Amino acid sequence: MTQKQHRTILSVGSMAFDSVRTPAGKADQVLGGSVNYFSLAASLFTQIKIVAVVGEDFPTEHLQFLSKRNIDITGVQVVKGKTFHWVGEYDSNMNEAKTLATALNVFEHFDPKLPSTHVDCPIVFLANIDPVLQQNVMEQMKTHELVAMDSMNFWITGKPEELKKTLKLVDLLCINEKEAFLLSDEKSLEKAAKKIQKMGPSTVIIKRGEYGSALFTPHSVFLAPACLVEEVIDPTGAGDSFAGAVVGFLAEHGANRKMIKEDPAAWDELLRRAVIQGTVMASFTIQDFSIGRLKTLTREEITHRKHKLMKMLSVNE
Amino acid sequence: MTQKQHRTILSVGSMAFDSVRTPAGKADQVLGGSVNYFSLAASLFTQIKIVAVVGEDFPTEHLQFLSKRNIDITGVQVVKGKTFHWVGEYDSNMNEAKTLATALNVFEHFDPKLPSTHVDCPIVFLANIDPVLQQNVMEQMKTHELVAMDSMNFWITGKPEELKKTLKLVDLLCINEKEAFLLSDEKSLEKAAKKIQKMGPSTVIIKRGEYGSALFTPHSVFLAPACLVEEVIDPTGAGDSFAGAVVGFLAEHGANRKMIKEDPAAWDELLRRAVIQGTVMASFTIQDFSIGRLKTLTREEITHRKHKLMKMLSVNE
Repeated sequence: MTQKQHRTILSVGSMAFDSVRTPAGKADQVLGGSVNYFSLAASLFTQIKIVAVVGEDFPTEHLQFLSKRNIDITGVQVVKGKTFHWVGEYDSNMNEAKTLATALNVFEHFDPKLPSTHVDCPIVFLANIDPVLQQNVMEQMKTHELVAMDSMNFWITGKPEELKKTLKLVDLLCINEKEAFLLSDEKSLEKAAKKIQKMGPSTVIIKRGEYGSALFTPHSVFLAPACLVEEVIDPTGAGDSFAGAVVGFLAEHGANRKMIKEDPAAWDELLRRAVIQGTVMASFTIQDFSIGRLKTLTREEITHRKHKLMKMLSVNE
Repeated sequence: MTQKQHRTILSVGSMAFDSVRTPAGKADQVLGGSVNYFSLAASLFTQIKIVAVVGEDFPTEHLQFLSKRNIDITGVQVVKGKTFHWVGEYDSNMNEAKTLATALNVFEHFDPKLPSTHVDCPIVFLANIDPVLQQNVMEQMKTHELVAMDSMNFWITGKPEELKKTLKLVDLLCINEKEAFLLSDEKSLEKAAKKIQKMGPSTVIIKRGEYGSALFTPHSVFLAPACLVEEVIDPTGAGDSFAGAVVGFLAEHGANRKMIKEDPAAWDELLRRAVIQGTVMASFTIQDFSIGRLKTLTREEITHRKHKLMKMLSVNE
């Protein structure tokens, strides 16, 4: 088992206001954005530095709250204009969001600039943004030990060549099932993962919504069912907070890309445990609108639910 | 671990011709029916006696083949007329069959009569047929130690009261996710299972297609992801062969309903292992049309794939 050696994560992505309607209710102009969900989740494991852009309408108290949570907000640009606003809804199939409107606002001209204090973070998480910006971020990094990323159908179909360039820079990709099929042009999970692994990221986690996820490392495959949740309130942020816990757990355990080559079995074992942390984290996120549940969530609660989940996964030969 | 004590299973259900179209191709007038899939799967674990009805057009060679597989076919009624014919298709969502036509033929007047040699089989599997017929079967049984059953939306909406009467006679229900929600009028898996457990079957297995299954016993919950399959050819029979392996494995290990009360932890442990066998069996079934794969499948192949699956499920705390 790897010793705990906290490493700082740099995460670049979106801060947003979300207006969401789900079968359980609705929430207007609540806090959202990939970097918000990711960093709140990861901050339960390690230190994070975030880079994002918000408008003048973004609540200062929220930035202060992030700051209290060991999240370095000095890379958040506050610019003239309004914060990115996403309007979406989920029908009874809670696995897929339907975007009703997107007002990019200040996010439209987001040009991530890394403060000099950020360019040597050992772990980088490129949240779901334009792959060109993801590359810009990587160009600014002086050194790094592990790079993870997320993406989405919008970039897979809209900027496939740029996305493929970014993928070459990445060790770990988190992506949902439909997007994995779209990116790989395959229909089976295993074939899709193998094809994506050849594009760059040697480790791929394919998220399957309420059904869990599948992990593909150079060493093996791991299938993780999701936690059973009594009532899903709002699935928004499940994927980003999943990634936050996965990457946070890796950072906490001193993971780096050397390990992937030198000890693929240990990497695989660590990744399996990280996926379980991500699974549990996502199950909390969806139990409230926005970052409601993440704001109060403790590491003890995660560990408690993890124990319950582990009991649901064990089986003898 | 329970000692192996083979017990005979009685299974009552349908024998059919299927005409199926899937994204992988099509098959016309091929062998199908719940009891066919169930018994071929279960016969790899224990002896089976089947009760069904076929028309004069049903191939004698097939009955002979079943007979060679340790399946007692003396309860199969061959009557004047044509065998039940189901026409269906699957689109890219292989989890759900769309019925295009159903010619009940001789199945319309199916009146299951148990030969006197069948009325004391310790284990009963009521495949998906009219719940009134399922009750008739149980009335003919002199004694039994464990009863399992399957059902479908057609009976849940069409004969809900009769279905509820049948459920009271049952220890173990295998049902798919959508049907579980329909039957329980709940939307979460755990709530649905708990409600169904109160209807009679103290153990419920909810099948989730390509995503696996969830097992609810009086003792605990077990989540089992499905095997990854390179290409799904035809999902028909996946559920019935899953049940065949589950119930076959239970029969092989001397399971009975006394155990559920007296040692719920041992029952739970046995059921988890049974679900894994079912998971593996279903993954073979879908790799060919009709009973193509099941006809040649060996216990060794099942065990080999089970080992592979187990490696994909293991994770450390």
